[in-house]
Amino acid sequence: MKVYDISYLLNESTPIYPGNANFSIKRVQNMPKDSSNSSAITMGSHFATHIDAPVHVIEDGKGIDKFPIDRFVGKCDVLDFSVLDTESIDKKDLEKKNIKNNIVLIKTKNSIRGFDIFHEDFIYLSDSGSDYLLSKGVKLVGIDGPSIKKFRYHPDYVHNNLLGNDCLIAEGLNLLEVLQGEYFFLGAPLNFEGSDASPARIILIEDFYE
Amino acid sequence: MKVYDISYLLNESTPIYPGNANFSIKRVQNMPKDSSNSSAITMGSHFATHIDAPVHVIEDGKGIDKFPIDRFVGKCDVLDFSVLDTESIDKKDLEKKNIKNNIVLIKTKNSIRGFDIFHEDFIYLSDSGSDYLLSKGVKLVGIDGPSIKKFRYHPDYVHNNLLGNDCLIAEGLNLLEVLQGEYFFLGAPLNFEGSDASPARIILIEDFYE
Repeated sequence: MKVYDISYLLNESTPIYPGNANFSIKRVQNMPKDSSNSSAITMGSHFATHIDAPVHVIEDGKGIDKFPIDRFVGKCDVLDFSVLDTESIDKKDLEKKNIKNNIVLIKTKNSIRGFDIFHEDFIYLSDSGSDYLLSKGVKLVGIDGPSIKKFRYHPDYVHNNLLGNDCLIAEGLNLLEVLQGEYFFLGAPLNFEGSDASPARIILIEDFYE
Repeated sequence: MKVYDISYLLNESTPIYPGNANFSIKRVQNMPKDSSNSSAITMGSHFATHIDAPVHVIEDGKGIDKFPIDRFVGKCDVLDFSVLDTESIDKKDLEKKNIKNNIVLIKTKNSIRGFDIFHEDFIYLSDSGSDYLLSKGVKLVGIDGPSIKKFRYHPDYVHNNLLGNDCLIAEGLNLLEVLQGEYFFLGAPLNFEGSDASPARIILIEDFYE
């Protein structure tokens, strides 16, 4: 059994999506004055590796706590498009892959370029790509960009289409070391009541049943 | 396969350990003024269900990000002591159980009483209990109280003994619905660099290999 951590390291250099809350971590109890060390953490709900809930884009949509835990756990397909020089992953790209599971993770050149700074020209899922994944019964889509849709592109069909059709979204994945194939996905976010999203430590397990 | 969520719901009523940072979640982007909803979250590093790192009590100890991801994943034993009217779980109690794995979760009357408010008289792991678990090769101990050691008890042998011997600690578990037995544990915390702890969404999987 091999475990992949596909989450970002979280610190004050971790890139933040423009308009989202800043990140900080500060000690509030300090040894030896206090009997132990503890900290206060401030972060955006969409900070780094995270899961979006419908209320992110749908006014009366569900918060992240309203999904049964099973929705964040299960077999997944990692689809590797990292050889493609492309602006987006489209239906025509996805049709060439074998989708066997209802959790699908999309690997692109974003993972190859890395995540040290915020790149505005990240690769995203196209409108047609989101339609295709829904037609295949997908219930959670993950991607290795800071958002699943084109930067500053409106209206935001992709988020509305997926979240409006009960399909969760994982953003900010690091798939550099993960090859195309089938894995066990574990991506339960922190259970913030009513939240539009939550950071999550997302992992993949290979050879889970062996 | 059955999945148990053994984490607390996180909101402004979730009990906070005295001295730790307060919790808040506030919208920073609001529809329809903004194109989507997003929030700023502030929480203590030891808020609710979380994993402690050595630097919590050891000045030059490791932060939570310094552990390989495998340390937060694996087979575990849930030991049920919830029939005991006791102040602490001691070596003599643990000796009666069959410990097969290096992740051990301790269920007590804390889970029966519930977690709606902070109770100062929660059941904890005794000094002898921590010695015994280390002698069995345990590498992660979880408990269903807000801390693994007695409230306001100093010196803090239990944290120092476990964390000083490379054994992680999970606190704030809700084991009410979990029977004694063997499960697959998934408890990766958010990967805050250098942090003394991090909240985690911790789950157990039953019949993992079936």
